[in-house]
Amino acid sequence: MSFLFRPLRWIDDVSFATQVHHLSGPIRVTDSNGEPAKPGDLLVVEICNLGPLPGDEWGFTGIFDRENGGGFLTDHFPCASKAIWHFEGIFAQSRHIPGVRFPGLIHPGLIGTAPSNELLSIWNSREKELVERGVDAVGTAAFLHTRPLALLPTPEGALLGKIEGGTQLWEEVAKDAARTIPGRENGGNCDIKNLSRGSKVYFPVFIEGANLSMGDMHFSQGDGEVAFCGAIEMSGFLELKCSIIRGGMEKYLTPMGPTKLHVNPIFEIGPLEPRFSDWLVFEGLSVDESGKQHYLDAAVAYKRAVLNAIDYLSKFGYTKEQVYLLLSCCPCEGRISGIVDVPNACATLAIPTGIFDQDVRPKRDGPPRPPYLLSYGDVPKCIYDGPLPTTKNPALS
Amino acid sequence: MSFLFRPLRWIDDVSFATQVHHLSGPIRVTDSNGEPAKPGDLLVVEICNLGPLPGDEWGFTGIFDRENGGGFLTDHFPCASKAIWHFEGIFAQSRHIPGVRFPGLIHPGLIGTAPSNELLSIWNSREKELVERGVDAVGTAAFLHTRPLALLPTPEGALLGKIEGGTQLWEEVAKDAARTIPGRENGGNCDIKNLSRGSKVYFPVFIEGANLSMGDMHFSQGDGEVAFCGAIEMSGFLELKCSIIRGGMEKYLTPMGPTKLHVNPIFEIGPLEPRFSDWLVFEGLSVDESGKQHYLDAAVAYKRAVLNAIDYLSKFGYTKEQVYLLLSCCPCEGRISGIVDVPNACATLAIPTGIFDQDVRPKRDGPPRPPYLLSYGDVPKCIYDGPLPTTKNPALS
Amino acid sequence: MSFLFRPLRWIDDVSFATQVHHLSGPIRVTDSNGEPAKPGDLLVVEICNLGPLPGDEWGFTGIFDRENGGGFLTDHFPCASKAIWHFEGIFAQSRHIPGVRFPGLIHPGLIGTAPSNELLSIWNSREKELVERGVDAVGTAAFLHTRPLALLPTPEGALLGKIEGGTQLWEEVAKDAARTIPGRENGGNCDIKNLSRGSKVYFPVFIEGANLSMGDMHFSQGDGEVAFCGAIEMSGFLELKCSIIRGGMEKYLTPMGPTKLHVNPIFEIGPLEPRFSDWLVFEGLSVDESGKQHYLDAAVAYKRAVLNAIDYLSKFGYTKEQVYLLLSCCPCEGRISGIVDVPNACATLAIPTGIFDQDVRPKRDGPPRPPYLLSYGDVPKCIYDGPLPTTKNPALS
Amino acid sequence: MSFLFRPLRWIDDVSFATQVHHLSGPIRVTDSNGEPAKPGDLLVVEICNLGPLPGDEWGFTGIFDRENGGGFLTDHFPCASKAIWHFEGIFAQSRHIPGVRFPGLIHPGLIGTAPSNELLSIWNSREKELVERGVDAVGTAAFLHTRPLALLPTPEGALLGKIEGGTQLWEEVAKDAARTIPGRENGGNCDIKNLSRGSKVYFPVFIEGANLSMGDMHFSQGDGEVAFCGAIEMSGFLELKCSIIRGGMEKYLTPMGPTKLHVNPIFEIGPLEPRFSDWLVFEGLSVDESGKQHYLDAAVAYKRAVLNAIDYLSKFGYTKEQVYLLLSCCPCEGRISGIVDVPNACATLAIPTGIFDQDVRPKRDGPPRPPYLLSYGDVPKCIYDGPLPTTKNPALS
Repeated sequence: MSFLFRPLRWIDDVSFATQVHHLSGPIRVTDSNGEPAKPGDLLVVEICNLGPLPGDEWGFTGIFDRENGGGFLTDHFPCASKAIWHFEGIFAQSRHIPGVRFPGLIHPGLIGTAPSNELLSIWNSREKELVERGVDAVGTAAFLHTRPLALLPTPEGALLGKIEGGTQLWEEVAKDAARTIPGRENGGNCDIKNLSRGSKVYFPVFIEGANLSMGDMHFSQGDGEVAFCGAIEMSGFLELKCSIIRGGMEKYLTPMGPTKLHVNPIFEIGPLEPRFSDWLVFEGLSVDESGKQHYLDAAVAYKRAVLNAIDYLSKFGYTKEQVYLLLSCCPCEGRISGIVDVPNACATLAIPTGIFDQDVRPKRDGPPRPPYLLSYGDVPKCIYDGPLPTTKNPALS
Repeated sequence: MSFLFRPLRWIDDVSFATQVHHLSGPIRVTDSNGEPAKPGDLLVVEICNLGPLPGDEWGFTGIFDRENGGGFLTDHFPCASKAIWHFEGIFAQSRHIPGVRFPGLIHPGLIGTAPSNELLSIWNSREKELVERGVDAVGTAAFLHTRPLALLPTPEGALLGKIEGGTQLWEEVAKDAARTIPGRENGGNCDIKNLSRGSKVYFPVFIEGANLSMGDMHFSQGDGEVAFCGAIEMSGFLELKCSIIRGGMEKYLTPMGPTKLHVNPIFEIGPLEPRFSDWLVFEGLSVDESGKQHYLDAAVAYKRAVLNAIDYLSKFGYTKEQVYLLLSCCPCEGRISGIVDVPNACATLAIPTGIFDQDVRPKRDGPPRPPYLLSYGDVPKCIYDGPLPTTKNPALS
Repeated sequence: MSFLFRPLRWIDDVSFATQVHHLSGPIRVTDSNGEPAKPGDLLVVEICNLGPLPGDEWGFTGIFDRENGGGFLTDHFPCASKAIWHFEGIFAQSRHIPGVRFPGLIHPGLIGTAPSNELLSIWNSREKELVERGVDAVGTAAFLHTRPLALLPTPEGALLGKIEGGTQLWEEVAKDAARTIPGRENGGNCDIKNLSRGSKVYFPVFIEGANLSMGDMHFSQGDGEVAFCGAIEMSGFLELKCSIIRGGMEKYLTPMGPTKLHVNPIFEIGPLEPRFSDWLVFEGLSVDESGKQHYLDAAVAYKRAVLNAIDYLSKFGYTKEQVYLLLSCCPCEGRISGIVDVPNACATLAIPTGIFDQDVRPKRDGPPRPPYLLSYGDVPKCIYDGPLPTTKNPALS
Repeated sequence: MSFLFRPLRWIDDVSFATQVHHLSGPIRVTDSNGEPAKPGDLLVVEICNLGPLPGDEWGFTGIFDRENGGGFLTDHFPCASKAIWHFEGIFAQSRHIPGVRFPGLIHPGLIGTAPSNELLSIWNSREKELVERGVDAVGTAAFLHTRPLALLPTPEGALLGKIEGGTQLWEEVAKDAARTIPGRENGGNCDIKNLSRGSKVYFPVFIEGANLSMGDMHFSQGDGEVAFCGAIEMSGFLELKCSIIRGGMEKYLTPMGPTKLHVNPIFEIGPLEPRFSDWLVFEGLSVDESGKQHYLDAAVAYKRAVLNAIDYLSKFGYTKEQVYLLLSCCPCEGRISGIVDVPNACATLAIPTGIFDQDVRPKRDGPPRPPYLLSYGDVPKCIYDGPLPTTKNPALS
């Protein structure tokens, strides 16, 4: 099967949730005898090929404003910014972040099967419970409580495919339909950069036909997609090949939890990921920017690794916003290196040095001085270097 | 410079903290003019080569009992277990986990410079504060509060090198000396598997001479070292080459926190990591085993990915303990794939399929049935499949 | 710049020379000031992307009959055969060679600049001299003199672009225009499989504008393209980016020979070649099939390596023709491993084992017995196992 | 099994043939029941680990004088030269070729089983026939007839293990014992750089016990070992693991030739080859330096690729002797890219750019000017740039 996607483009004054995740699908999958996939099967989806739409070879990476969803580093980068990328075949480059060029690890940010009513109900219930817990839900973690905890179902801006607007059915569906921001048991918006050319995904099937949907095409993304709208978002095509492993959920998966519905997809990585040999790696521990010790918190550790990388690369002529955008979308790898040595988790962020046209490794003489600025005048001012913002999200206070 | 290590071996009735981390060092580093490394410099350490001690080509991987330190999955695996590994040149294999064989990504679990008094004081203070916060410090995270929060300085079992035991000096030092369990600003016990042949590490220097120490040699480790004593621990040698970047901390690093001492090492990956082309990848989200929703918690997500992998591989003839041990020490990769899609963090665990002598990818007919047991009778009983243990660590209650 | 190619398809009763090498071009290249490339410059061509034409995702691999051009192993495979390949995104598979599937290393078999009159004259002269030497020209080498020595210019079947047929100009050009079978100083039909996505080629410029031409798109090819029409020939598109290094020939190249025109292109390999970790490698020495010793003859050694691989893989259920076709077009690597140890050159052929759906490595029990035949009835009979054919090409006798 | 080698070191005034190939062995191999390997079996040898002898971490690369064996480019480099390499763990560097450093792909240049009397007789007979053919044997190939055609058995300098010197037995054996310069059916001195850590070789067994021998340890080598003594020759250790596939020759190999003894080993590449991502590649065609056209001659094509690389890199501050030595021993790859496009074979030489501390890729401004000389005064004068030497080897005239 082969599909074409054309997600909407960057529109300044509308929110992410209702605009970016236009999906293609759902697709009912049957075997060669016409028998549909059934609950308990595994749906095998091979991503045979994918790429930008011909004639539309460009994309964007965005930082969202704190009031519009924010991102992993919203505490440090509260304002919106963006970079536009131009594709030269397999390569991306941007006038907004000059001096870098890299091959894309193209993938769908979102791909997954449809939930059953029971599973949908579990989702809505547990996410609602999280929102109700409120600030406490964030615990001691990496975040200053400035982002939404979850996006619960709401008719506002809901996109419901062929269901006619204004009908009672529309209203009923809209008030329960899960927002497609997070990845869940069905796959969904996992934003896993390795679901690229030649990868093969094994999805659990929850309803007859599997009802596979997909979208959110990315030309490239770094592990974590830290700026939230942080991949290189683009219009793209996707060629898939599907088959079914009958009874595969029982054969291979082990549901957890009281309802025995909590499972996750499995996948194999494809053979065409870009090859890099040299990596510069930044470490981070679970001690936050204020010096506070957290307990084996991998998110805090990764946040610190990313901040360390931003600080480092900003000495080579980039603004911190540029690096934040870059680390969101270049093929960097985020690793949980140590997760047992109490009290410090250790996360690492590995950046392929070959994407820069200068040598960014540490040298005896330091980085080029005075730092030549690679940025443009129209990039929003960076408030990163000032005191940490302390305002909480009003929705959470 | 070239050093030889011979850390102590597995001894059943003594605790990890006092026995495994015998270190080599500290080594005072000077430049070719005899000028020592100074605070503010970067110490460049290239790991030229390393390996097991000739004639001592074996190692072990251990699960610690919940009362003896536990590990990442102590909630599920509360009892101690172990596997012994035999090395055939670059390869490791074990009679305790038959059917797997893999090349080692040999590295020192611990390597780092010495802290200044000021930095040491910060460490002790923030970790003490964590212990005092107690159970609350764990927040909503992945752990059932059954592991120590931190190991504070104590004269009990302290190893203080050449300081004479029983003296007042010994007492004074012992009551402040940081335990070497966690990685910290100086590097230390980060357990980063990629610090292998040919890698180059840039350490911050806090005191004159840098005082580089190292130990905890690993023949192999998976990202996270999930079983805690989870690498293949061995006796080994290490060949290093050092140089100094004068003023390198100012040139390249950006200290955080009020004291401006919070920095982390940077490193480059070496050119001799084992090459694998096929990876089977398990996903995990920040929804825990009980079905509870956590907020962008990467540790919970990684825990779920590891549990998913354990469940899956246990269908191929292994006990869950065997897989837990294997995923602790084989060259698997733990990634933070998505960290922004509220409320779910998405972590992935990628396992190279080539380490198995059977094909462990999903197939139409399911795994071999009935599962042939690859384990031995003397492996402690698995309580994994029962109800989750709920007993808290008395030290924490 | 972006170009689309649509070379003609396999037509049984016409010769290769006039049908396959329809080219696109020539393209006159200028810099951004409109100044054309000039003799002595280097033309830098980056292959930004390339692939099959949408809607036309198939290709073929052919063995030519001895009387129609033959191939590297014509002495053993004198008759024509072929395989049709179907593309599933990045993968190729064939009903004619079941049980294999591999990602394509797509490349143009032919790409190059135009020769000057002087260089063209050198080509024609040296190739004519070779033909006149006749059988002696083959020396002691790998070949039984059954293939053409060279294809000299001839009006018969010449394709001359926009020059009007039947004119005097057409006649004059046709009698001197070089046939595009071999690679030459300008690049041309080098059939280098690594000129794939993201590679960058530095071509010498011999005439104003460089006049870049290209064609012969391959979905995949093994080193050597041993069956002659041995890549997966297809219709395809090609996206290029050109720039000019002024005076680059003098800066970087060193012409050889009396005329100082003998140079060769240089290239950089791109970052998206398929990743394989396991290779089965066959050796060959410069002792031919009859047991005769040749002197450091790398072609004889490579021929023996390929024959060894064909014999080996034919024990796994394939006919020898199938393997010959497969090794012509799968991403196998042909190496000159040793070229100094008199009298034996040593060549190796490395085959990625992951392209097979069975394990083709040697095992204790031997290959599956009795060999299950993976071939179809319509494949021409193999005369490989009989006595070596001794008939010489009449054109050479 | 584990063996230690200590081949003799570079001694100026003695010839290669009698001094470098001190071997370890022969080793009689049995199975676990004490049954020896038998003719017709395959001996499986896994190279578990290997490296330089501790305390002896250095090696050398030599160009031999034309009168002392010469090398692939003796026609251009008739005089002896050398470079000494110092090992820093996995890396080699040389004061004679500054500005380069690379990880070693350590391997035994020579490893193989013993021939039967019948096979030995075939060797001696076919090589003697070659010498008797004399200059004609070289055909139209790459060489100006200045090297020995073959080294036939001679008592002079023979090394015969434990056979007592001066006895009749010694005399009888010495006059028939094959010199170990070339690789042959038994493996032997194939100088295949990929027989490194973790590779697995399948050797044919010709006599009871297999009698495995090995030696000629190389820290690193480029494909072809072009300078003849062109690897980094060193003292080293080798750890092997052997097993037997009974009847494996019949199961997997297909002997050629009238005597049905002409077979070759097969091998699998190990998982620890150094990783490089960027390659600069030089092409060569079968047109020699004088402009003469050869027919599909891969040795001529490879010679031209190597000469092109030498010329190119000599523009970056190196003498041509330095580059010749470097390309003999660095991990470069020699490919037979095209072998069917009459009349031109196309060979390529791929050099990993990461081994240089300068960027050697073509740039707009050309290489650094004036070229800074990276060589030392004691390197023998280069006569490469003068007219080609035409003197023939007197032994051949």
